[in-house]
Amino acid sequence: MKLVDLPTPCLVLDRVILQRNIDRMAGALRRHGVPLRPHMKTAKSIDVARLVLEGQPGGITVSTMAEAEYFAAHGISDILYAVGITPQKLDRVAALDGAGAEIIVVVDEPDTAAAVAAHPAGIRALIEIDTGEGRAGVTPDSPELIVVAGRLGARLAGVMTHAGHSYAGRSHEEIARVAEGERRGVAQAAQRLRDAGYAVPIVSMGSSPTAVHAGSLADVTEVPAGVNMFGDLFQAEIGTHAQADIAVTVLASVIGRRPGRLLLDAGGLALSKDRSTETAPKDFGFGLVLDLAGQPVHGDTIIRRAYQEHGVAEIDPAHNIELPVGAKVRIAPNHTCMTAAAHDRYFVVDGGLEVTAVWRRANGW
Amino acid sequence: MKLVDLPTPCLVLDRVILQRNIDRMAGALRRHGVPLRPHMKTAKSIDVARLVLEGQPGGITVSTMAEAEYFAAHGISDILYAVGITPQKLDRVAALDGAGAEIIVVVDEPDTAAAVAAHPAGIRALIEIDTGEGRAGVTPDSPELIVVAGRLGARLAGVMTHAGHSYAGRSHEEIARVAEGERRGVAQAAQRLRDAGYAVPIVSMGSSPTAVHAGSLADVTEVPAGVNMFGDLFQAEIGTHAQADIAVTVLASVIGRRPGRLLLDAGGLALSKDRSTETAPKDFGFGLVLDLAGQPVHGDTIIRRAYQEHGVAEIDPAHNIELPVGAKVRIAPNHTCMTAAAHDRYFVVDGGLEVTAVWRRANGW
Repeated sequence: MKLVDLPTPCLVLDRVILQRNIDRMAGALRRHGVPLRPHMKTAKSIDVARLVLEGQPGGITVSTMAEAEYFAAHGISDILYAVGITPQKLDRVAALDGAGAEIIVVVDEPDTAAAVAAHPAGIRALIEIDTGEGRAGVTPDSPELIVVAGRLGARLAGVMTHAGHSYAGRSHEEIARVAEGERRGVAQAAQRLRDAGYAVPIVSMGSSPTAVHAGSLADVTEVPAGVNMFGDLFQAEIGTHAQADIAVTVLASVIGRRPGRLLLDAGGLALSKDRSTETAPKDFGFGLVLDLAGQPVHGDTIIRRAYQEHGVAEIDPAHNIELPVGAKVRIAPNHTCMTAAAHDRYFVVDGGLEVTAVWRRANGW
Repeated sequence: MKLVDLPTPCLVLDRVILQRNIDRMAGALRRHGVPLRPHMKTAKSIDVARLVLEGQPGGITVSTMAEAEYFAAHGISDILYAVGITPQKLDRVAALDGAGAEIIVVVDEPDTAAAVAAHPAGIRALIEIDTGEGRAGVTPDSPELIVVAGRLGARLAGVMTHAGHSYAGRSHEEIARVAEGERRGVAQAAQRLRDAGYAVPIVSMGSSPTAVHAGSLADVTEVPAGVNMFGDLFQAEIGTHAQADIAVTVLASVIGRRPGRLLLDAGGLALSKDRSTETAPKDFGFGLVLDLAGQPVHGDTIIRRAYQEHGVAEIDPAHNIELPVGAKVRIAPNHTCMTAAAHDRYFVVDGGLEVTAVWRRANGW
């Protein structure tokens, strides 16, 4: 099967770039002596998990119970569900625990911690630490940290933090500063808990940008980075990787032509309505148009409007694209996590135009 | 099964509101004597199609081949695939034609028209007319209209237009003006084709806003409105329906609390990253928080940030929401077509808190 024969729109994953990205992150963490607990919320694929877990301890991070169930069914037995748990979800967690996988959950307040501790399945939890993002978690120096730990008791498995505000960083130095704040915060929380008599086996920190740019990962026991495996225009803009490191693209067909514009069959559903590059150094609209081989030969030909199934690309005036209706292009996404979620599978290529595998994704909840 | 017991996030469809919306659109079109060819790109559900087709001729409009195949498999035999076709997709269209459904395709240029005419399956096509949106189509007075018709020959089934620029309208009068431009344009195109000797059985025009606000639908044979069945915050803002007419909401759980904020387990995937109300009279961020019963009791409590699986609601200071972790709310979406697409099913309620049915959706391509 060749790319040019695929029905469009669909998702293309270049295994050569994927492997390079995986190797780069593994190398970066090896220098710190810290293993990866890869965040599978971007890839949602056991085939990708197998590649990224090579040489790692084997645990993963997920963002939905659907992912937890999917990966557990495929033999992954150590799963961190890194979105704040609710008491109602504990039975679903326990069902997987009963089936041989351990799902570690995340809490940040006493009532939920008490519900976890009271559950007969013996579910373990991390306490989420807010190291500056202000989304979820208790602050490292707060009295609540010790209160939540008290409610968890023997169910306390450690601490985690996600410095999502690193995404606002625009230089290596700025992101490194956020990473160091993230590290200091989570390490401080771990130390306070140890001082209070708790074992804290897991100290989880890091997003793709902070994992790449961190100067130190001292006191950190694992890193849950994920989007770096695939990359996207936003991560390229903030320096997590190069633009040539984007492994996932959307294959689309030309369905109409106007002077200076191409109408494509990839719109807001196939690309997502994510506009994260709006605040990046360069705004890529809803995505950057590449050629069928994934090469950036069309300059700044960018999807400027995205309807449900129509994408309107404005052709870079310096690049005279002459493509007939039915011609295929690939589109690099703003935010791979969002774009990939509309697609149920990857068409895998190995740097070429031949589809060498089809890998399924575990979408939904 | 009760709403309060559902795993979150998930999609809730209120059948009472749905039926009211369907009745209102049917009534509006009955006054014009024009039938509906409902656009199923929003609902993607045979159960919804059955309700909306009550009293209508039975044809539908779709935006993907996956929808066409799904609805054909469920017995719908007259399907307009209203996104510009490519030659490569014709075999997939023909396969459905061979299975007893007719898929009418859409073209706007000579080469594609020639490919349709040359296909042995005898596929029929509409010519897309650009009545001011500038997205796709030939203009009503263009020489290309007659050229494309010439290439289609006996395969010409009519004309269609979609005045998407009606979405920029901010008053009944403004949208009525767009609707009249849309109508005049498509009627002019039909007349030019008839004058050139072609039969033009289908003259399709109308989006939800223009169908509701049109002063006249003279010369129009069918209307492909769709989003009106479900409604959303954007359509409410531009006056297509009232805010109380939004039939689809996302059920979410509180997963964290901060002063003035609720953290919910519905983020950018469950709600979509659509920001269409950004340009509306009122900006609803990523959605408006309602209570479990779907009532707007929380004032302007709005999802202001949407991460992959986290939504951050800023609590309206005039409404003191005290909800514990695990409590459930419903979120009215900006743009239902985008939001619904992340979910594989509807949990149907009949105005209450009891789930009375589960209806599947046909997502993807």
